[in-house]
Amino acid sequence: MSDTHPPRPAGSLLVISAHAGDFVWRAGGAIALAAQRGDRVTVVCLSYGERGESARAWRDGQGLAEIKALRRAEAEAAAAALGADTVFLDAGDYPLPEGPELTDRLVRVFRDVVPTVVLTHTLTDPYNADHPAAARMTLEARILAQAIGYDAPGDPLGAPPVFLFEPHQPEMSQFKPEVLLDITEVFDRKRAAMECLPAQQHMWDYYTDLARRRGSQLRRNAGPNLGLPSDTRGEAFMRVYPQVTTQLD
Amino acid sequence: MSDTHPPRPAGSLLVISAHAGDFVWRAGGAIALAAQRGDRVTVVCLSYGERGESARAWRDGQGLAEIKALRRAEAEAAAAALGADTVFLDAGDYPLPEGPELTDRLVRVFRDVVPTVVLTHTLTDPYNADHPAAARMTLEARILAQAIGYDAPGDPLGAPPVFLFEPHQPEMSQFKPEVLLDITEVFDRKRAAMECLPAQQHMWDYYTDLARRRGSQLRRNAGPNLGLPSDTRGEAFMRVYPQVTTQLD
Amino acid sequence: MSDTHPPRPAGSLLVISAHAGDFVWRAGGAIALAAQRGDRVTVVCLSYGERGESARAWRDGQGLAEIKALRRAEAEAAAAALGADTVFLDAGDYPLPEGPELTDRLVRVFRDVVPTVVLTHTLTDPYNADHPAAARMTLEARILAQAIGYDAPGDPLGAPPVFLFEPHQPEMSQFKPEVLLDITEVFDRKRAAMECLPAQQHMWDYYTDLARRRGSQLRRNAGPNLGLPSDTRGEAFMRVYPQVTTQLD
Amino acid sequence: MSDTHPPRPAGSLLVISAHAGDFVWRAGGAIALAAQRGDRVTVVCLSYGERGESARAWRDGQGLAEIKALRRAEAEAAAAALGADTVFLDAGDYPLPEGPELTDRLVRVFRDVVPTVVLTHTLTDPYNADHPAAARMTLEARILAQAIGYDAPGDPLGAPPVFLFEPHQPEMSQFKPEVLLDITEVFDRKRAAMECLPAQQHMWDYYTDLARRRGSQLRRNAGPNLGLPSDTRGEAFMRVYPQVTTQLD
Amino acid sequence: MSDTHPPRPAGSLLVISAHAGDFVWRAGGAIALAAQRGDRVTVVCLSYGERGESARAWRDGQGLAEIKALRRAEAEAAAAALGADTVFLDAGDYPLPEGPELTDRLVRVFRDVVPTVVLTHTLTDPYNADHPAAARMTLEARILAQAIGYDAPGDPLGAPPVFLFEPHQPEMSQFKPEVLLDITEVFDRKRAAMECLPAQQHMWDYYTDLARRRGSQLRRNAGPNLGLPSDTRGEAFMRVYPQVTTQLD
Amino acid sequence: MSDTHPPRPAGSLLVISAHAGDFVWRAGGAIALAAQRGDRVTVVCLSYGERGESARAWRDGQGLAEIKALRRAEAEAAAAALGADTVFLDAGDYPLPEGPELTDRLVRVFRDVVPTVVLTHTLTDPYNADHPAAARMTLEARILAQAIGYDAPGDPLGAPPVFLFEPHQPEMSQFKPEVLLDITEVFDRKRAAMECLPAQQHMWDYYTDLARRRGSQLRRNAGPNLGLPSDTRGEAFMRVYPQVTTQLD
Repeated sequence: MSDTHPPRPAGSLLVISAHAGDFVWRAGGAIALAAQRGDRVTVVCLSYGERGESARAWRDGQGLAEIKALRRAEAEAAAAALGADTVFLDAGDYPLPEGPELTDRLVRVFRDVVPTVVLTHTLTDPYNADHPAAARMTLEARILAQAIGYDAPGDPLGAPPVFLFEPHQPEMSQFKPEVLLDITEVFDRKRAAMECLPAQQHMWDYYTDLARRRGSQLRRNAGPNLGLPSDTRGEAFMRVYPQVTTQLD
Repeated sequence: MSDTHPPRPAGSLLVISAHAGDFVWRAGGAIALAAQRGDRVTVVCLSYGERGESARAWRDGQGLAEIKALRRAEAEAAAAALGADTVFLDAGDYPLPEGPELTDRLVRVFRDVVPTVVLTHTLTDPYNADHPAAARMTLEARILAQAIGYDAPGDPLGAPPVFLFEPHQPEMSQFKPEVLLDITEVFDRKRAAMECLPAQQHMWDYYTDLARRRGSQLRRNAGPNLGLPSDTRGEAFMRVYPQVTTQLD
Repeated sequence: MSDTHPPRPAGSLLVISAHAGDFVWRAGGAIALAAQRGDRVTVVCLSYGERGESARAWRDGQGLAEIKALRRAEAEAAAAALGADTVFLDAGDYPLPEGPELTDRLVRVFRDVVPTVVLTHTLTDPYNADHPAAARMTLEARILAQAIGYDAPGDPLGAPPVFLFEPHQPEMSQFKPEVLLDITEVFDRKRAAMECLPAQQHMWDYYTDLARRRGSQLRRNAGPNLGLPSDTRGEAFMRVYPQVTTQLD
Repeated sequence: MSDTHPPRPAGSLLVISAHAGDFVWRAGGAIALAAQRGDRVTVVCLSYGERGESARAWRDGQGLAEIKALRRAEAEAAAAALGADTVFLDAGDYPLPEGPELTDRLVRVFRDVVPTVVLTHTLTDPYNADHPAAARMTLEARILAQAIGYDAPGDPLGAPPVFLFEPHQPEMSQFKPEVLLDITEVFDRKRAAMECLPAQQHMWDYYTDLARRRGSQLRRNAGPNLGLPSDTRGEAFMRVYPQVTTQLD
Repeated sequence: MSDTHPPRPAGSLLVISAHAGDFVWRAGGAIALAAQRGDRVTVVCLSYGERGESARAWRDGQGLAEIKALRRAEAEAAAAALGADTVFLDAGDYPLPEGPELTDRLVRVFRDVVPTVVLTHTLTDPYNADHPAAARMTLEARILAQAIGYDAPGDPLGAPPVFLFEPHQPEMSQFKPEVLLDITEVFDRKRAAMECLPAQQHMWDYYTDLARRRGSQLRRNAGPNLGLPSDTRGEAFMRVYPQVTTQLD
Repeated sequence: MSDTHPPRPAGSLLVISAHAGDFVWRAGGAIALAAQRGDRVTVVCLSYGERGESARAWRDGQGLAEIKALRRAEAEAAAAALGADTVFLDAGDYPLPEGPELTDRLVRVFRDVVPTVVLTHTLTDPYNADHPAAARMTLEARILAQAIGYDAPGDPLGAPPVFLFEPHQPEMSQFKPEVLLDITEVFDRKRAAMECLPAQQHMWDYYTDLARRRGSQLRRNAGPNLGLPSDTRGEAFMRVYPQVTTQLD
């Protein structure tokens, strides 16, 4: 584990989230770390999660437009707390309308944002059909955006690495932690972002505990002589493509 | 991909090879890179490959002792070309005698060398039974060496990351390139080390070609803006444990 | 294996079948057991199997409308023999039109039937593309029906367990028997239901033999002291979600 | 989920644990539930965990005999708190000596205890080599004990179901929760048993949290109308053999 | 390996290629062998690869119609060099429009060509989304074409075997060589066909090298006493359905 | 499927069976076909199955020596009915003593028999630990026998293909039919061989039915125009290494 890095050109992190809140729980640390480093971070919310992830608001009798506005405001606040910009595609959820139209909108985002790193959902989630749909469209859009012949504004994309963030029930979703990211120094920001989502207060502690557990595993896998502190916090990810490196560590 | 790294304490790379030549073809680049960085590199050859990987010498009518001496000399020369030390356990090959005795000898090496990174074979290889046996013993010895109660000299080990190097027929051995290491700047040393093994001259070009192919994939997966040269050379590895990092790239 | 169960509120079994006959061969025993226990059983036939599973009728020169009527009558008779109600969605087969429209019709069935247990096809079947399509839509509809925000009549659904029934070629379809259901006491009804499908007479004996084989395996896995009779008949299923229980057995 | 069960002949639960403490963290709830039901419960500790899982005692300068006695006393106290008997095979750990001798000792336990249910470790655990070794020997001993020709006292065994308990890092060990056991009513006993292991105090809270998480998943998978309380506690298991049942639920 | 075959009725090989050039690199040897044997060979190009696989032409400033014409001419020349007929469906690429319309067009090709053997892409390719889409539609169309009730001209199809050809990055695409085809005697024709695609000159040597590597593996797996020459060339394939044979070899 | 083959040098089929009867049920057809073709067939029984597969004899009160003699006589009669020679290694069963000694005995058989084709058990069988042990030793012995430096009489072996025969519970043993062998013309001999094992009479019909089921699947996968008769009988196998061929069919 190399704990510092030399100056480098600013990166561009693109996070693609099926619903308005997903990026906070699953990648808030990665986002805050990138933003703190000076990278541009763009969070794309394919939907507001208005139908599938706003149970309390529906029970409170709110209408569809109100719920969307509410979720948007929460997501904007959370993104601001993390240092990220937001793009809302308002494509609808439950189900997310998977297909070439929405994929094309993602291609245009890729061409515009020119990401150096991409984050999205896992390809399996037996408790949520929108998450894998978002992941499939993200992977396809990334490939399409690389083709010079694809008819969208901007230059053909390079091939940025893709990381999949941890789903709510990892063991049921074929999720294996392949990368443990040390988010200790930005965990306070992640907690602040979580607190921008008051309807899901039970999640605040759940994801604080998860950060602690992933942090413990991070220490356990960090190898000798690292001296990581006992309150290390982590987030786990999978990779879609091979890691490219100049050093094995 | 972060292409430079800050000063860091010297590492200790431990490479465990079933037969005397394996480390050259499969990890010569990783070894040379580490040595060039100033890390200590120790190559453990569990056997000389005297029975299973010395066909030409047997056909030439040489005896067992001669063959072992020959293979040892070649491996020493190749290790020297790469900048590594060698340890020969002379445990015999075809079959490698898998069991607690040989594993205990490995534990003692772990305690002595205190590796910060470990390389060994894959756990599957339908064309060679010694390779997976070496990998199983390496993984077990690494765990045993971490236990304070294990009765061997030295301090309990930390938990160094383990990388598995590419087998000769990757698709048949459940090998998926998870890490692509850029060995361009040390490829000449790897070639020189390969040339220390004159009986396997057909392998020189095979592994030069492989380095080129893995180099092409490395460029293809390296993301935008990296400008890697077209003669990039690579080696591929799998990970046993999660990567620990402070930055997704 | 607990061989009796206490009084309980009546359940609601929902069986989703791609074609009109599938439920008979694959789940007739489970259906008859549930009906005998007093549960409501609803069989949804997404199509009549009019194009893909009515070869004899086509060879006999019948027209599309005739074939659909014939398959419907057979399925109704078989369901009656098992004690189940039927719902025919007449969506067409070969191919089954997978997509949000048909999935929405299934959501409405879920909201109406309020199943306590769901049965459907496996997610893999290299000999039939409609079966996995039916399974995918069933799994998605079950999730959508749970969302209070989904715009369909009825209350949000709980999360009923889902079982996948055995495909015709289990080894080619990644089917592993995870649950062996003892259908001995209702096997006569299953046989009677099979005999409602005269065009597939060769299947009667095939599925009678399969029930015997699965019955033998059931006895072999039933543990000590159970004294199951030698003519035990069984049906095999996979689970999509974890079993929830108060007792390991 | 059938939440009560009729009177049945007393069962015999056999738990095979590589080290003295494993059964407490991983299966304490299952043990207490069985004992409370009136089943006989036998915990076999293949070793005391004296070398690999007693780091604090070694650091405190204790000797091997002392450590074994300490671990034995703790395990006996924990088993008593759960209502289980203990058998200590004292085979040594790190490494557990896998082979026909120790397997034969297990066969004799199987023939003596005549289990109706068996619990042991998972077959994969990259952080501990003794756990999979214990699982392999358990599975082999169970098969051998069924053979009338195997030369050991007692009658040939029936074929009891086998459950694998949750390893410390489930996602890294190919562990998927296939059975979620409701341990709410005996959780206090599990906590009391955990507190019999004072050297691992950090584990008390870890496994209390895990019970809560598995309990939440249990509620989420329990289907409609069950009304499980919000403080439901659970333990997760995998199955080796198919479930045998008379009812899908 | 049976190296000769008796006279047999002429076969019909159907190759379904997502883009105009794919069949040359991946199946040129299989095509030339079949044609040389007197089989009819039909290559279906679902698209010209005009957007995704014509980077040089786009960089040269050509227009869409020009590029399609160019790719078509190249594919026709390559097919002629191999002895195959071509069918161009011009469905568009990046993305290939997967769905019932294009699948129906494939069904009609199946009914017309009456293949005895089918070749297509793998079901996984993380670097190209059109390849798996082509494979999925091919597999579905083959099933539909077998149904007498499917409304398309021609007789219901038999069940021809399906082979999946090697993707560009086999280890990343779950590709395992299950069949190694000896293409030595037609390799010159494959090379000639490759040279009909001047824009991808770097691929000529890549696929010549691959043929050599697969040839070496073919020799290594060919069993004793075969005396295959050292310049053996091969192509690798996977099977979707079991091999049917009268002899194990 | 090529239904005839030209004259070829006589082959040598080596079948390695954990217990005396295994080869009859699982590979009787393959053996009879090879023998009828003029190939030499050698069946190696690692044990007589005296402890684990002779329940009836033990219940009848026979002693160990009697049982071994009985099983040997039965196996010899069955092998004779199929046209095969037998080699009995009498290594003991339940458990089969896996290790370098027994593997070495197998290497010597390989060097003596010089097989052109090898058959053995699958690598997974949760109901029998001897079967996978036999398979592992067979695969290792085959590799060792290829090494010129391995100290055993005879010449180094070529690399014969290996087929794994169908276990008793294929779906539980990760068995997927990869090769379906048409044994119709020798099925009478297989039945006659089965009838040489009177203690397992219930198996006669079981494996006759299985031959019919595998025969039906063989017809279903045989492709168009083959006109296989409705009483086709089959045996299923998996491959360990790629098929080598000059023709895709």
